[in-house]
Amino acid sequence: MKLWQKDYHLNEEIEKFTIGNDLETDLLLAPYDVIGSIAHAIMLNKSGLLNDLELEKVNKGLKEIYRKVTSADFRIEEGVEDIHSQVELMLTRVAGESGKKIHTGRSRNDQVLLDIRLYIRDQIFEITRNLDALSRQLIELSEKNKNVFMPGYTHFQAAMRSSFGLWFGAYAECIAEDIELFQSIFLIVNRNPLGSAAGYGSSFPIRRNITTELLGFSSLNVNSIAAQMGRGRTERMLSATLAQTADTLGRMSSEICLYCGQDFGFFTFPEELMTGSSIMPHKNNPDVFELIRGKCNQVKALPNEMLMLATNLPSGYHRDYQQMKERIMWAINTVKSCVRIMNFMLQHIVLNRELDKEKKYRYLFSVELVNEFVNDGMSFRDAYNKVSELIRSGAYKAPENVNYTHEGSIGNLQNDLIMNRLEETRRFFGTQEDQIKMKLSNLAGLKSG
Amino acid sequence: MKLWQKDYHLNEEIEKFTIGNDLETDLLLAPYDVIGSIAHAIMLNKSGLLNDLELEKVNKGLKEIYRKVTSADFRIEEGVEDIHSQVELMLTRVAGESGKKIHTGRSRNDQVLLDIRLYIRDQIFEITRNLDALSRQLIELSEKNKNVFMPGYTHFQAAMRSSFGLWFGAYAECIAEDIELFQSIFLIVNRNPLGSAAGYGSSFPIRRNITTELLGFSSLNVNSIAAQMGRGRTERMLSATLAQTADTLGRMSSEICLYCGQDFGFFTFPEELMTGSSIMPHKNNPDVFELIRGKCNQVKALPNEMLMLATNLPSGYHRDYQQMKERIMWAINTVKSCVRIMNFMLQHIVLNRELDKEKKYRYLFSVELVNEFVNDGMSFRDAYNKVSELIRSGAYKAPENVNYTHEGSIGNLQNDLIMNRLEETRRFFGTQEDQIKMKLSNLAGLKSG
Amino acid sequence: MKLWQKDYHLNEEIEKFTIGNDLETDLLLAPYDVIGSIAHAIMLNKSGLLNDLELEKVNKGLKEIYRKVTSADFRIEEGVEDIHSQVELMLTRVAGESGKKIHTGRSRNDQVLLDIRLYIRDQIFEITRNLDALSRQLIELSEKNKNVFMPGYTHFQAAMRSSFGLWFGAYAECIAEDIELFQSIFLIVNRNPLGSAAGYGSSFPIRRNITTELLGFSSLNVNSIAAQMGRGRTERMLSATLAQTADTLGRMSSEICLYCGQDFGFFTFPEELMTGSSIMPHKNNPDVFELIRGKCNQVKALPNEMLMLATNLPSGYHRDYQQMKERIMWAINTVKSCVRIMNFMLQHIVLNRELDKEKKYRYLFSVELVNEFVNDGMSFRDAYNKVSELIRSGAYKAPENVNYTHEGSIGNLQNDLIMNRLEETRRFFGTQEDQIKMKLSNLAGLKSG
Amino acid sequence: MKLWQKDYHLNEEIEKFTIGNDLETDLLLAPYDVIGSIAHAIMLNKSGLLNDLELEKVNKGLKEIYRKVTSADFRIEEGVEDIHSQVELMLTRVAGESGKKIHTGRSRNDQVLLDIRLYIRDQIFEITRNLDALSRQLIELSEKNKNVFMPGYTHFQAAMRSSFGLWFGAYAECIAEDIELFQSIFLIVNRNPLGSAAGYGSSFPIRRNITTELLGFSSLNVNSIAAQMGRGRTERMLSATLAQTADTLGRMSSEICLYCGQDFGFFTFPEELMTGSSIMPHKNNPDVFELIRGKCNQVKALPNEMLMLATNLPSGYHRDYQQMKERIMWAINTVKSCVRIMNFMLQHIVLNRELDKEKKYRYLFSVELVNEFVNDGMSFRDAYNKVSELIRSGAYKAPENVNYTHEGSIGNLQNDLIMNRLEETRRFFGTQEDQIKMKLSNLAGLKSG
Repeated sequence: MKLWQKDYHLNEEIEKFTIGNDLETDLLLAPYDVIGSIAHAIMLNKSGLLNDLELEKVNKGLKEIYRKVTSADFRIEEGVEDIHSQVELMLTRVAGESGKKIHTGRSRNDQVLLDIRLYIRDQIFEITRNLDALSRQLIELSEKNKNVFMPGYTHFQAAMRSSFGLWFGAYAECIAEDIELFQSIFLIVNRNPLGSAAGYGSSFPIRRNITTELLGFSSLNVNSIAAQMGRGRTERMLSATLAQTADTLGRMSSEICLYCGQDFGFFTFPEELMTGSSIMPHKNNPDVFELIRGKCNQVKALPNEMLMLATNLPSGYHRDYQQMKERIMWAINTVKSCVRIMNFMLQHIVLNRELDKEKKYRYLFSVELVNEFVNDGMSFRDAYNKVSELIRSGAYKAPENVNYTHEGSIGNLQNDLIMNRLEETRRFFGTQEDQIKMKLSNLAGLKSG
Repeated sequence: MKLWQKDYHLNEEIEKFTIGNDLETDLLLAPYDVIGSIAHAIMLNKSGLLNDLELEKVNKGLKEIYRKVTSADFRIEEGVEDIHSQVELMLTRVAGESGKKIHTGRSRNDQVLLDIRLYIRDQIFEITRNLDALSRQLIELSEKNKNVFMPGYTHFQAAMRSSFGLWFGAYAECIAEDIELFQSIFLIVNRNPLGSAAGYGSSFPIRRNITTELLGFSSLNVNSIAAQMGRGRTERMLSATLAQTADTLGRMSSEICLYCGQDFGFFTFPEELMTGSSIMPHKNNPDVFELIRGKCNQVKALPNEMLMLATNLPSGYHRDYQQMKERIMWAINTVKSCVRIMNFMLQHIVLNRELDKEKKYRYLFSVELVNEFVNDGMSFRDAYNKVSELIRSGAYKAPENVNYTHEGSIGNLQNDLIMNRLEETRRFFGTQEDQIKMKLSNLAGLKSG
Repeated sequence: MKLWQKDYHLNEEIEKFTIGNDLETDLLLAPYDVIGSIAHAIMLNKSGLLNDLELEKVNKGLKEIYRKVTSADFRIEEGVEDIHSQVELMLTRVAGESGKKIHTGRSRNDQVLLDIRLYIRDQIFEITRNLDALSRQLIELSEKNKNVFMPGYTHFQAAMRSSFGLWFGAYAECIAEDIELFQSIFLIVNRNPLGSAAGYGSSFPIRRNITTELLGFSSLNVNSIAAQMGRGRTERMLSATLAQTADTLGRMSSEICLYCGQDFGFFTFPEELMTGSSIMPHKNNPDVFELIRGKCNQVKALPNEMLMLATNLPSGYHRDYQQMKERIMWAINTVKSCVRIMNFMLQHIVLNRELDKEKKYRYLFSVELVNEFVNDGMSFRDAYNKVSELIRSGAYKAPENVNYTHEGSIGNLQNDLIMNRLEETRRFFGTQEDQIKMKLSNLAGLKSG
Repeated sequence: MKLWQKDYHLNEEIEKFTIGNDLETDLLLAPYDVIGSIAHAIMLNKSGLLNDLELEKVNKGLKEIYRKVTSADFRIEEGVEDIHSQVELMLTRVAGESGKKIHTGRSRNDQVLLDIRLYIRDQIFEITRNLDALSRQLIELSEKNKNVFMPGYTHFQAAMRSSFGLWFGAYAECIAEDIELFQSIFLIVNRNPLGSAAGYGSSFPIRRNITTELLGFSSLNVNSIAAQMGRGRTERMLSATLAQTADTLGRMSSEICLYCGQDFGFFTFPEELMTGSSIMPHKNNPDVFELIRGKCNQVKALPNEMLMLATNLPSGYHRDYQQMKERIMWAINTVKSCVRIMNFMLQHIVLNRELDKEKKYRYLFSVELVNEFVNDGMSFRDAYNKVSELIRSGAYKAPENVNYTHEGSIGNLQNDLIMNRLEETRRFFGTQEDQIKMKLSNLAGLKSG
């Protein structure tokens, strides 16, 4: 059964090829499809396109369907093309002629656009909540270890004095910034595409502002063609944002894998969190971090795939866009699981607190010797040259008792500033989520929790 | 001459390979390097690391250098490694020992970070100004042609009634959204990395908040390692944003190329804006739009290159980051020139106003016939099936006098809503630019205005 | 159960995260894993590391296991980590202590390398067979329609006289070339990695040339580290080759979608091979080709993902490589299904044989008018200018009775040359496949067909 | 001056935008353009389209032009659009009306196709010669250091015994394989596109086999449309091959950067081949390898850019293809310079020959202890478990006097097999290059060297 069913049958091979994995991905969209339909029905009623009795039937039917599609065993029926056809079919069964009217003034195109938009909105809430937790965990680790020496590298060369506090804090700040990026995407994405139909609107006197309000959108995707181009645009923006986060997680994992090795030996994890080798009994591999790194690098490749998919296609829907759905869902789930398992692993990290005793790191203090000379009145360049000579002649000796005071240095981490940013984005998303959840719960006939 | 010059000489081949095109790209950064140095010097003075007399000398010298580096014939001297060495060299010539002190409490790493940050900030002002102009031009075209018929396509198939007004307006809205993306990037990028030195701060009692204020940043990149990771992060975010804009421009150009052909024939351009063929005398090719499309697709490939470049590199500077500079500058210039030439071309577009007479587009009104039946009380599905049958039996006749009223439809474009968004972002960037220009002009000793 | 099982238990969450979809992808590798094990056992015996009795037990066990893993209902048991552990477990059950000896002189690393290599080899046979069929189908269409006019485009502008024969033949030749690319990859990939263990060989006196011969490889991946680096290298080469083919298929599909529209109307397909719209009853969309185009564009994004995944990783195995397996399999299956459905669709293509009557294509003959003047003694440039003027003044008239004679022109397609290339690659792959199938069948204890 | 010059003037802004950097890139193509023209003229004469006297004039003129364009100070004249127009202009000056006839039976499209093809062919000769030298250098280093201990890593963890000999040899083999890839590309690329004109051939009775023979091609790009699609196809194949090589070079550089650090300390380079830090006097950074790594990662991003550029464009020329030229040339030059400087650097590498004394590497021999037990009759799994226990209880002691004998192991590198492959590809390319150089020298009127 298809929304566009005619009186001949589609070739079976074609049918299989064109449907793809849609039936599975559509399950995730099902609740949003029903809620969107409820809002649409209310709007049709207010626009005079559905009378009160019809609305009541439709509304009752959809609320019942909502319960069904959110239950664990819900499946799209054999022979039904997609979730939109499935919902319309179930509705027609319970609401008869009134159910058939639900497609008035909308198309499958803006329906999918809406479903994906609602799904993504919720996912951004979840991702940013997970990222927020990870960042706070990192700040905690930073504060707890702010005085533990760690060498600082440039060019893979041990370069300067650093601390575990500074290192953990750095990733906390990067993640705080990644959350800000999600916030800006959210603002652009939280607009209503419903009513743009197949990209060219319709001659029905619908009132799009009503569904905007009912579904908790901040405003309209105004122009119908632009709304339709939101397919692709949304996926590109979101995947770019996921990629930025994936880069942060992947980079940190990459460092962790490196520093777990015998040559660095900066930290380790309990052996039940590591994996072994089939031929080397002494090995304990940080596979979790290797997989986070690998998966995150795959997510980093996604924006390019999204861009490639729609390159040079003119405005208006093309079936190619269907292919984006599954991949975006995969990326969202991958990022979420990486954030969560990273947070879990970091709770069990065991630091090496004796790194300052390693002879190989003694030159890390050379900059500070330069600075000492500067403080004694020498120009920076002259001091630099003098220390350079001391090192080459073997006369260099590491200075003791140095003091870092400036903002963001090992002696003055200012994690509170990072925490402030987290608080700000948390407040933003918290408020948004509460308002939206309440509106959608009302539509679905649930009590909001 | 290098900031790290020692008493032996670098192999010449190595020198050439490592410097690359830096000397040219650095010219664009020169003014920012000088202004950053002035702010740094003032801060050193306030932090007690440069006395008043030294500051005066340095300040005077740098203002003089600023005039030099902003003159057309400025070049980095033979044998000087980069702009940072060049500025320090020039300063030492005029300010002697005081000049040497300017490198106190900073590293080439945070200097480059700062220069790029200041450069990008200015470029975002310019790009968004250009995009704003293009979007307004599109709105003008949209309003002027709101009643001119254009077929609307889905799946490359003529699908529904549309208008040039709707089509131009769609891209106006997409661009308005692209500007919003630049705004969100601006907010993240407008933070101060200076003082993070080589990524691990320094033991000098510098006060980073002072340069934050002097240089017009909204806040600090707090953590020194995070500030250093801003190299790469900034380029990734910016290139993703440029790519999103490039996708918009490229897609519109792609449509224009297609619609210029004889098969569509939707519009044309004066022949002095087209190019010819070496063997086909009848050809007038829309090369400009093909090149916009091509260049924009190259820009779309850039985020991936930026991601690839730093994949799996641990925190801390690596020389690889140098490679990003030239490419980001190329992308910025490419996008700017594409926006400008597109705006120019669109001012001369000549529309085909007779498309509604083409017989091949008559089925575009089938949806409206469906809607008519619906308005007469039939359910949508039944009406759909009835029209389906009419078409198959040849009895279909296009309806006349249809009326589109909803928001964002051909009968009610609501370009004013898009214009409002443009006004909002223009106001934001205008205010930011004014404040920042004034601060930097003060530092450079110029009268702003 | 894991090959590296120790006396503590891996955290469950970690286990789930690290295993991923491996259990499903591993099913495709199962038969290869068993056959590789048989070859390895024979080699161990010839190298004096497994006595005759042990070999017999192992051999008998593995042949039984081969039948099991190739049956439809085979599954990896609950709690077993991967196919390698599963096979070893089953073997130990039937062959006892002898079974445990099978891991002598190899590691899971070279086992996976081998399995993937054998799997890919077979897949290349299948893909190229499908491509060969498609190319021959295109040659058939080319020959059948060699005299049917089709406009030839440059810059999306109708430019010159062409024919469906030339157009179909063009893609036949591109695909013939794509097959050649697969051939060159095959030659590089058909080398034996077994015996490189975890990338550093082993101190067992194994004889790698024996398995090379038994498994039908042309030679060794000699160096153990290089063999291990084959992981990643293979996937990169293969994905680049798949992408090249995907580009061919995607481009042709893109053209088909375009030409199916009302504006071109070059051909159509029976309606049972098209799909409809949920709101526009007149629509018949070429969704199959849109999906081929979309999927192929995704495949085109794969080489980049493969490159990204392992960027900057030093030699030696990293768990990230595991992530490549599933994606390569997806790409292989996608390309195969696209090739097959494209072949199926093209068998039903219905051409428009009246395009030469369209007035909009009359300028396509302008080049030939130029050529006429040239044949009459005018220089090319002068003739070009003259025709240019005729067109601008409206005096142009299309010439009749032109004759194309040169190789590869509409009058002389020379599809036989393309067919020759197909014959050559078919012969190569046919011979290889026969030899290899026979060897593997012998190992598996099957009669080869 | 343009090949398609008409009687109005192209807008200047448009002219600048459309020409881009073509004038510079075209300089590299100039000699090929002239040689291609000579071959084309000879063919026109043999096909009866140019009489003997005309041929003589044209031939003489072109040989003179060849000398000019290969001189260091050659420039494309102000106002001339591209190299093809420039050559035709110069020819018309010296050969008058005969010169104008040279464009008979060809288009700028197949001219560019040919020029790029000839250019790339030569570049493949040069790149593979450089790669061959690098691989041989690596084999030399491998042989010289075959007994020097180096730890072997998996998962960034010191895992097994290895040697510098094995490590250098691994990259030698990878490069030998990369050369094989270039060979297969060469075979596909060495086909003649000339005569396909603008993609649809011409009605001139030209004989394409003649230029195929004259220019040293192995065969024809038969079908005219397919020949035109060679634009893009060639760039995609070549960039994929360059990317594979870049991956090899980048990976090795990445390892070198890592191993130069204090934590590994595997080798170092003389300080005149390193670069320093502006604030840390003790630093000696391996910038050359960081830049190779960075540049190679950029080259790895190129195939994607090439794919993106032409995605979804139908057959037939589009101006977008022009953008590929500059980037392919950049990639070729980048890879060549990376190979050369890498070769140079490796000649000066200084190994740490005392790594076997490092305590942190003692567990690397655990596998060999397992193997010892196996050789004593224990099954591999039992031996593995026993050693596992010894390590956990602290009773593990590294075995001495182990012996690696199998192919490709540290005790039996078999670099001779790799050398054989190098010899084979060298022989192939040597023969090809000699034959082609001789043919082109004849055409250009030079004595071949």
